[in-house]
Amino acid sequence: MTETDKLSIEWHCTKLCNQFANLGDLNDFKALSLLFTEDGSMSRPSVPEVDIKGRQTIIDAFMQRPPLVIRHIVTNCVISVISETEATGFSLVIYLAAPHTDAALPLVAGPIQVGQFKDKFVNTGDGWKFKERKGQLALKTN
Amino acid sequence: MTETDKLSIEWHCTKLCNQFANLGDLNDFKALSLLFTEDGSMSRPSVPEVDIKGRQTIIDAFMQRPPLVIRHIVTNCVISVISETEATGFSLVIYLAAPHTDAALPLVAGPIQVGQFKDKFVNTGDGWKFKERKGQLALKTN
Amino acid sequence: MTETDKLSIEWHCTKLCNQFANLGDLNDFKALSLLFTEDGSMSRPSVPEVDIKGRQTIIDAFMQRPPLVIRHIVTNCVISVISETEATGFSLVIYLAAPHTDAALPLVAGPIQVGQFKDKFVNTGDGWKFKERKGQLALKTN
Repeated sequence: MTETDKLSIEWHCTKLCNQFANLGDLNDFKALSLLFTEDGSMSRPSVPEVDIKGRQTIIDAFMQRPPLVIRHIVTNCVISVISETEATGFSLVIYLAAPHTDAALPLVAGPIQVGQFKDKFVNTGDGWKFKERKGQLALKTN
Repeated sequence: MTETDKLSIEWHCTKLCNQFANLGDLNDFKALSLLFTEDGSMSRPSVPEVDIKGRQTIIDAFMQRPPLVIRHIVTNCVISVISETEATGFSLVIYLAAPHTDAALPLVAGPIQVGQFKDKFVNTGDGWKFKERKGQLALKTN
Repeated sequence: MTETDKLSIEWHCTKLCNQFANLGDLNDFKALSLLFTEDGSMSRPSVPEVDIKGRQTIIDAFMQRPPLVIRHIVTNCVISVISETEATGFSLVIYLAAPHTDAALPLVAGPIQVGQFKDKFVNTGDGWKFKERKGQLALKTN
């Protein structure tokens, strides 16, 4: 692998972390599920012990979320390239949400939650995908 | 376009989003205006319905801002390359501000506001520039 | 330098900023110190007037920190490449912390602090490193 190959892998995997947040916040769960391999799995930072495995299962889990105006803020993404087909990642995720209403934006959010994801990425025939996302919470505001 | 060309465009456009925030927070509105095309336009997240069009108009709008210590936190930037000369982008912007005083830093900020920008970028003879930034707010703390 | 060379330098230096935060939050101060040149120095955003110089001195300073669950959120990183061996950077750093306890995560954090780092980077025989980090605070929540 050249230096440019490694940089490209790191960029693609970082983009997946941002897309996961943005698509989830837009309630586009179908597109979000396609960021994972067919058998990819994730756990939410707020429920780290529950693995949600497989694209349709991921969609179903998000569909059960009550209607929210929610923003997942993604930062500190560091990708470690293992090979041309494997990488791992660590990033912070900070989120705020309010129950969806017809009131004018911005809505007043509940506490700010600060957590993280540890990721495994693989290069498939269809580009880089999440194989596994493991979430965990660290801090919150009161 | 090669993969590296696309990555370079995404990197340049992401950098514009960060520079917009940093230059605005430093009150360097002239340099901020040069991130836009001559006829580029923007709307603030807090006033999404008002288009501010043209470099001098953008400078004038910022000059009317009261003296603030302000920080615009930029995250989740995802760029979609359309062609060698066009791209679009989405990013979150979180901001905090306090009226400027001579008190020692840090100053106590008002509510945290969470919004977003949808951007159109073009490649000019002078590099990539914002053609349009459309802001919107989503959430705030109380 | 080619465009790709510059992009690679900016990427490496951005990664250093993220790694500094992540390694510090994980209490891996030895690895954090290796992000600096042998004689590299830093000042904390909360104590900007005190330079902490040299790898072991940096480790010692972090070791004196009381046990915390802490997260440094890094954003807005803009790198300016000066030459093949020198670059400068600016980034925001937002942090939250709670005294370490055995309570279940997430812990309730104290005020959010918003600051920044101005950095000098150099390319050593062992890759890009921090030569100098100068921190400063701007805002906090109450």
